[in-house]
Amino acid sequence: MTNHTTKAFDADLLELRRKVGEMGGLAERQTAAAVDALAHCDLALARRVILIDDMIDRLQREIEEVSVVTIARRQPMAVDLREIVGALRIANDLERIGDLAKNIGKRVLALKGQILPQKAVRGVRHMADLVLAQLKAVLDSYACRDAEQALVVWRSDEAVDAVNNSLFGEVFAYMMADPHNVTLCIHLLFCAKNIEREGDHATNIAETVHYIVEGRTLGDGRPRADRTSQALVTIAPGRS
Amino acid sequence: MTNHTTKAFDADLLELRRKVGEMGGLAERQTAAAVDALAHCDLALARRVILIDDMIDRLQREIEEVSVVTIARRQPMAVDLREIVGALRIANDLERIGDLAKNIGKRVLALKGQILPQKAVRGVRHMADLVLAQLKAVLDSYACRDAEQALVVWRSDEAVDAVNNSLFGEVFAYMMADPHNVTLCIHLLFCAKNIEREGDHATNIAETVHYIVEGRTLGDGRPRADRTSQALVTIAPGRS
Repeated sequence: MTNHTTKAFDADLLELRRKVGEMGGLAERQTAAAVDALAHCDLALARRVILIDDMIDRLQREIEEVSVVTIARRQPMAVDLREIVGALRIANDLERIGDLAKNIGKRVLALKGQILPQKAVRGVRHMADLVLAQLKAVLDSYACRDAEQALVVWRSDEAVDAVNNSLFGEVFAYMMADPHNVTLCIHLLFCAKNIEREGDHATNIAETVHYIVEGRTLGDGRPRADRTSQALVTIAPGRS
Repeated sequence: MTNHTTKAFDADLLELRRKVGEMGGLAERQTAAAVDALAHCDLALARRVILIDDMIDRLQREIEEVSVVTIARRQPMAVDLREIVGALRIANDLERIGDLAKNIGKRVLALKGQILPQKAVRGVRHMADLVLAQLKAVLDSYACRDAEQALVVWRSDEAVDAVNNSLFGEVFAYMMADPHNVTLCIHLLFCAKNIEREGDHATNIAETVHYIVEGRTLGDGRPRADRTSQALVTIAPGRS
């Protein structure tokens, strides 16, 4: 590219990185707040979680704009282009994480303060802690251009899945024990599913960080989500 | 922009439109097949649904590549830039639709041929028909640059939500009647949720088509998803 070393181009890239970092920080705080709201039936906090999503969406649009303008103006090649395409992809995953956290907030509002089974809530929180650690690590790996750390996140999906599977079993048993628990339990299952999917997006981001740094796409070697569907069947087979 | 009228640039844009159209066609077929697989417990079809997703993902990457190369090479402004950014956004929504359909395919495999409550399956199919009609209409509006038709899709979310709410009620009753139905029912609820979310993505695409044609973003006037959570609570309040 022609302007590789110009300060203007570096400033564009820095702005992109800063915005992605800001978006990541918001998504982390939003997820933590969503789980707090769920655990404490905190309707006011749930409303704040929903509002944060607008800020995340706005940041995604800004990242899209800066990316397009930068590509058009600087015509970057190779590593710089990867940097911009990578920012677009990460913003996309962070936006989805924001949506999933918002959805938990909406469910908290729908529950209207009903008390949830605390053992299951602890399971959800445990899952969220794991996912938040993944998210933090992958955002660090983006900030430091650390492909190794990204790989560690990319491979760390199993722990989340294990907690999710055991949580599904618990919630399931609770549902079987008393049909009146079904409403609450379905909300919990959807919340757990949302957090599991946030973890999937964290591993997507890890893939993108690896692509930015190494210029190669990772293969399909990583075990991936949606094992809860199988788990459900294993734990309690329905009628055949 | 400098090359607005060049054949090369027009060819780039045409290629983008063609690829988006192809992706849309695949997402439509994949969704229809996923619901067929669910209705008939057809494991072989479910496996094909899962495989289609790779083709959709590959097309998304190709659209991303063509977009970036076109932006860098032609430095388009205004309407042409909207065209490219729009293609990127639509590809993104279609990729999510593909993921959601794939997830239904995975659930069909997990069910291992267990018979589902046919009334609920009919509800899911009804929802899917509505969403497929939305998807077809919005892809047509993209092909014809028809902002009016896009607006119609954008406003057509309520029908899907109404079917989804009544379906949730049915599945819910079925679950309450016999806890042994819970596994199947949870799968059905997740499948219904996936289809509802496909409808959300169809309305996102409608928003993008409107943006491409009119250059303006639509406001937040459209009623949006996740009413099933409220519905659930209304239909059968759990313990408080």
